[in-house]
Amino acid sequence: MVIISGPSGSGKGTVVKELDAAKGYSRSISVTTRTPRIGEAHGRDYFFTTPEIFTRMREENQLLEHALYVGNFYGTPRRYVEEQIQQGRIVVLEIEVQGALQVKEKFPEAVLVFLMPPTLGELSNRLNKRATEDAVTIDARLKRALEEVPLINAYDYLVINDKVEGAVAKIDAIVAAERLRPRRCTEELTHFTA
Amino acid sequence: MVIISGPSGSGKGTVVKELDAAKGYSRSISVTTRTPRIGEAHGRDYFFTTPEIFTRMREENQLLEHALYVGNFYGTPRRYVEEQIQQGRIVVLEIEVQGALQVKEKFPEAVLVFLMPPTLGELSNRLNKRATEDAVTIDARLKRALEEVPLINAYDYLVINDKVEGAVAKIDAIVAAERLRPRRCTEELTHFTA
Repeated sequence: MVIISGPSGSGKGTVVKELDAAKGYSRSISVTTRTPRIGEAHGRDYFFTTPEIFTRMREENQLLEHALYVGNFYGTPRRYVEEQIQQGRIVVLEIEVQGALQVKEKFPEAVLVFLMPPTLGELSNRLNKRATEDAVTIDARLKRALEEVPLINAYDYLVINDKVEGAVAKIDAIVAAERLRPRRCTEELTHFTA
Repeated sequence: MVIISGPSGSGKGTVVKELDAAKGYSRSISVTTRTPRIGEAHGRDYFFTTPEIFTRMREENQLLEHALYVGNFYGTPRRYVEEQIQQGRIVVLEIEVQGALQVKEKFPEAVLVFLMPPTLGELSNRLNKRATEDAVTIDARLKRALEEVPLINAYDYLVINDKVEGAVAKIDAIVAAERLRPRRCTEELTHFTA
């Protein structure tokens, strides 16, 4: 299980889609009460839902994690993730910081990756270029990004997203390396018992 | 600092030389009291020396680590490693298990990789094919390999050396991933202070 976090404008959505499309990872689609941005589609980018339905899902333990982030709820549907892992697939999840740390506590094997644009100026540029949100929301997102910097130390890896292909290659190297952890190689080690 | 351990016959010598030649890592050459094998050269494979000189180097604190392994002393000259690290280079060291754990204790940032042939049968084949040692030594090496299996859990990564290029690529992915640890990215993070 690979969890990608990062401020809005870090490009995590694009990177996660590319990991799914080009590298064959299973992308988990989050559920959110946020309003769809222009170009976003239900069931592709998010499952968009109402606060009422979100609350019910949470109460029925259908969510692996959930959090309030810049005024909206976000959550990860549990069933899809569990099914994919059971099939031995690599699941990639896009989760904000609070939720990511919740998942790491429940699943210590999860690999946490923090995605960052190269500089704060670049982050601001990207948010402004997107032009799907008003100035107040953009300011809130920038402020939030700065607040999250100290939390990066709780992450396993930090990837600077300069170019999408570069970031995807780095995450793929991380996954390749993590598969070589001795605790994940119990099968290989059975060849070496006397 | 990348430390490669593994039983004789795991191919660690070849892999370490390839990391130096093809990937630009700085290979640290160990000092040993072992007799050179056919084809081995002083200053290329090892610095071959006498027990007396080895003991003096150890007493003068010229060794980063040292250990007795299957009847011979092995050690890592300290100065070369320190110089290369100071120049920001990746140093790759071939060290047996005891010595590797000594180094990890002194340098927690060191990355420990355990190299294994695919199976125990393959290990035995490789040692017999080498034909540079007598049957008693080969048996001692196989026995030692089995004893070391439980210690693999103290290592950061386990790489099965099926083909040299494959093992080299895996170790290179490990190094790429390890460079993305947040504690190694303090410079990138300075772009994100308010």
